[in-house]
Amino acid sequence: MSRRTFPLDALALDRTSRAPLHRQLYLALKTLIQERTLPPETALPSTRSLAHDLRIARNTVSAAYDQLVTEGYLANRAGARPLVIDLPAVPLAASPGSAREAHYPLSCRGDLMMRQPFHYGSPGHMAFHPGMPDASNFPFGLWSRLLARRASFARDTLFGTYNVTGHPDLRNAIAAYLKTARGVRCSPEQIVVTTGAQAGLDLLARILLDPGDSVWMEEPGYYGAQSAFIAAGARLLPLAVEGGDWQLDPPADKRLRLIYVTPSCHHPLGGTMRMEQRLRLLEIAENRKAWIIEDDFDGEYRFQGQPVPAMQGFDHAQRVIYVGTFAKILFPALRLGFMVLPPSLQEGIVHAVSITGQFAPLLLQAALADFIDQGHMARHLRRMRRIYASRRHYFHELCGAHLGDWLNLASGDAGIQLTAFLREGLADTAVAEAARRRNVNLSPLSMHYRHGAPRQGLVMGYAASDASATRRGILTLRETFEACRA
Amino acid sequence: MSRRTFPLDALALDRTSRAPLHRQLYLALKTLIQERTLPPETALPSTRSLAHDLRIARNTVSAAYDQLVTEGYLANRAGARPLVIDLPAVPLAASPGSAREAHYPLSCRGDLMMRQPFHYGSPGHMAFHPGMPDASNFPFGLWSRLLARRASFARDTLFGTYNVTGHPDLRNAIAAYLKTARGVRCSPEQIVVTTGAQAGLDLLARILLDPGDSVWMEEPGYYGAQSAFIAAGARLLPLAVEGGDWQLDPPADKRLRLIYVTPSCHHPLGGTMRMEQRLRLLEIAENRKAWIIEDDFDGEYRFQGQPVPAMQGFDHAQRVIYVGTFAKILFPALRLGFMVLPPSLQEGIVHAVSITGQFAPLLLQAALADFIDQGHMARHLRRMRRIYASRRHYFHELCGAHLGDWLNLASGDAGIQLTAFLREGLADTAVAEAARRRNVNLSPLSMHYRHGAPRQGLVMGYAASDASATRRGILTLRETFEACRA
Repeated sequence: MSRRTFPLDALALDRTSRAPLHRQLYLALKTLIQERTLPPETALPSTRSLAHDLRIARNTVSAAYDQLVTEGYLANRAGARPLVIDLPAVPLAASPGSAREAHYPLSCRGDLMMRQPFHYGSPGHMAFHPGMPDASNFPFGLWSRLLARRASFARDTLFGTYNVTGHPDLRNAIAAYLKTARGVRCSPEQIVVTTGAQAGLDLLARILLDPGDSVWMEEPGYYGAQSAFIAAGARLLPLAVEGGDWQLDPPADKRLRLIYVTPSCHHPLGGTMRMEQRLRLLEIAENRKAWIIEDDFDGEYRFQGQPVPAMQGFDHAQRVIYVGTFAKILFPALRLGFMVLPPSLQEGIVHAVSITGQFAPLLLQAALADFIDQGHMARHLRRMRRIYASRRHYFHELCGAHLGDWLNLASGDAGIQLTAFLREGLADTAVAEAARRRNVNLSPLSMHYRHGAPRQGLVMGYAASDASATRRGILTLRETFEACRA
Repeated sequence: MSRRTFPLDALALDRTSRAPLHRQLYLALKTLIQERTLPPETALPSTRSLAHDLRIARNTVSAAYDQLVTEGYLANRAGARPLVIDLPAVPLAASPGSAREAHYPLSCRGDLMMRQPFHYGSPGHMAFHPGMPDASNFPFGLWSRLLARRASFARDTLFGTYNVTGHPDLRNAIAAYLKTARGVRCSPEQIVVTTGAQAGLDLLARILLDPGDSVWMEEPGYYGAQSAFIAAGARLLPLAVEGGDWQLDPPADKRLRLIYVTPSCHHPLGGTMRMEQRLRLLEIAENRKAWIIEDDFDGEYRFQGQPVPAMQGFDHAQRVIYVGTFAKILFPALRLGFMVLPPSLQEGIVHAVSITGQFAPLLLQAALADFIDQGHMARHLRRMRRIYASRRHYFHELCGAHLGDWLNLASGDAGIQLTAFLREGLADTAVAEAARRRNVNLSPLSMHYRHGAPRQGLVMGYAASDASATRRGILTLRETFEACRA
């Protein structure tokens, strides 16, 4: 291209703009190349000549040319003018909306994962979100001070990819707490801090199960755990739970590798596993060489008597993996949980966790360690136990008074949610959907079943709602039922 | 058991203890049952009689009995005294250390995951940890104030399991940042915030790949990505990268589903992919119906000219998934990354993410949104670019002056780490191990290869070390090499 035909006008630079001149020139030249106004093999003007024509410094032209060389629009030639590279045409105009839909396939596993049941919530919509603790009584001011103190002295201890299995202060604090509060016997080294209990379940599913292996899984059971096992390629074998009883007839399946239970407080029905059954289960696991996951998701909340100690404390064959969370004691969006591994799993776990990225921010871990060590957690827990006991009582009372025509609460003394069985003829998914439209959030019991015909019921969190919210929620539920009938 | 033979002495209660009397009584009775001092079928004394003998309130005895009934040690009988349940013997004495080692098997996948390469660091040990940004210049005071402000007004918006795919403020901030800084075109809805880039890679591996599928993966390449694909059951096909060139001869493999590249700044060699190759790669992906993961792990740091725009901006067939991280711009322990999904993947992703628990704490997300929106991130980035440019220059200089006998730095203008090739005859793992013993942290280049004979080299982060730390580190490395020779 001769100096005369070179499209100098298209390179008009705006000297009043905040964008540097070399940047403006780079962008303008790039557009000319992409549009093929400057076709492949064009030799651009020399830096000296273009600088003269545009009345800018020669360095400015060099900077723009260099960037185009870096990105592969121009080729430098020793001692000669740079050449435009022959690029396939680049479509420029399409916006994301108008883009051709490619619909590349997902993996079968991805497809499966995207079809698993999921229950979501939204702020200001807390009656009666299952498993949701109370936000209004959480000491956010204190939490904010603990965070700020740790963050302002963070420097490099809370900075890098260190302590992938957990901040040492938090592992110590958890081990001490579990010993006294939950009867769990472990050293801090056995604890792996994760981004929530679900992350722990997901990680365990992957390191303990291969595609085609079987899990003896509570039915009904926690759908998050079921989904994690299914995502890992496992088959679920039902461990039926009814009326507070775990039906412990071990399945014949040869590929049984893992047993999942919630013995402190069954999810979602709320019963507690008796000592006899716990010992029997340990024996079955040992005979079958199967691991046990003990998911202690809200064992801290028991309203008659004391919390029941965890099964892990009776396990002498290192087959129980205890999974815990701070989602119920503190709050879900904290995204902190942990697992207690048998010593035989300790080695190597850091490699597995580091692949998954399921390890938690060190700052939050350090602040939580302070929260526990300074006694704030125990104090908060004592206080919330009192508040929840009274909310639970009131919820029971109102359910009996207003919803007795449609449902019966399952018995149970533990947990921050309650399950009700629906009167025959009512479909729980329809009720839950109708309730959600009225801003009442509860989950259908049927989503906790993966085999045969599910019982119809509602899983309801009572803990996040004070008396007036509970009353409003229950009356809205009554309206919902009346509308369903109509 | 008669009143006379009942072991009352073993129930001596300590009235000065802080433990409530009912708790003491419960623990003492439980021990007697576990030890079989109270054998199965023993009828315990009535609450009235035991209360009288122990000189405590009858309620106290009832509370202890109730707890034992809940836990399954005692059976209540209507109108009669409670009976000790016949339990299998519970081993009590074993401590975790003396426990029988069960060695239950891991899954093959678990075994594979635990054998993947992993490079760890520790605080106060930062010269020359690859990929580590600088801690001393991070505005922790400001960060602490942003956190504290969001935490103290948290209430329920930062509390529950909401916004699993990301806090709306952060998704908006990221979309705006990516548009101007990285040339990425996306709506906030396409962004999924994860617990770091690794979590994003792990999640993508699972939803895009089935066991047996193939990934065309940079060789050498980022070992974290390689491990995530292997953990998902995929086979790696080498996409050779040499001297800043990506060797784009597509593999014949029929199960090719995914292509992984780091076009802005190759990991670990540091080159930038030219426009021609980017377009060719997009074409290959489209022909083969393969997804592309564009991992832009430190595209922000370019020291000659401007950052090169991301490939995602040229993708009109929705086949590019852009993965980013805040580990290098802010700090790794923050554990925040994100991916930009094509619209076709948006639906359903919330189900997949919720299974894995790889979603990040809302509080950190909200504070980061403020950090970006208030211009702190852009300011920090500008400042660190200047600091890193000078550190990089100094590192180059010292390497040339002191280590020229043993290594040559690869060329490249981007990134916060540098790769050096070792002189023939030196084994990089041995050098890295010897350096670690001297508190210098670097990773062997060979760990980034999964096929054939790896080149020997060292991957070194220069960004976290100021002039004096760099000098100390380089001199220590010289000692290390001299010792290796000896």
